[in-house]
Amino acid sequence: MTTIRRESPYATLINVFTVEPDNAAELSSLLASATEDVMQHQPGFLSANIHLSSDRSRVVNYAQWQSAEHYRAMLSDDTAREHMAAAAALAISFDPHLYTVESVHERDR
Amino acid sequence: MTTIRRESPYATLINVFTVEPDNAAELSSLLASATEDVMQHQPGFLSANIHLSSDRSRVVNYAQWQSAEHYRAMLSDDTAREHMAAAAALAISFDPHLYTVESVHERDR
Repeated sequence: MTTIRRESPYATLINVFTVEPDNAAELSSLLASATEDVMQHQPGFLSANIHLSSDRSRVVNYAQWQSAEHYRAMLSDDTAREHMAAAAALAISFDPHLYTVESVHERDR
Repeated sequence: MTTIRRESPYATLINVFTVEPDNAAELSSLLASATEDVMQHQPGFLSANIHLSSDRSRVVNYAQWQSAEHYRAMLSDDTAREHMAAAAALAISFDPHLYTVESVHERDR
């Protein structure tokens, strides 16, 4: 289970895919199967969470990697690249960035 | 603490701000204080997590609301609108969408 914490030692990848609504469900499924088949077995992979916007114009992968170096090493892996290209082909555009968690806020209890 | 779960009963808001790198830290701080001062007290607010990209070109809020209706009601609140306008003024653009969590994946253990 992914938890979001401040000063996490992990690298957070957020990849926002802009997609034609008719392709949104297919892209979401493709990212899920690519994660199960390929990404999950890459060194340093911790978790990935595939999100579909209610207007079906965006698909977001919120993922955690052990470090930025592990994430970058995956980008050079041939099988991973093949799956990323398949996802990219279904999208209009995609926008991956690595992030740090700056602050976390919760409801007053 | 925010946890990401499949078939969550919550509405997930992901808002991606595109920002000039020089404004990224200020936007991140402004979103944190607006959350503490205003958003956190809105009905249905559950959590918000402010992320800063390592290239400083993006700031992302990953938030959970009790329902889409609670989120939409906040959008009509005058004080909330004022703080959202201040954040928008610091950004080049922003792209808020509500999402469902379609799938979650974890490292083999």
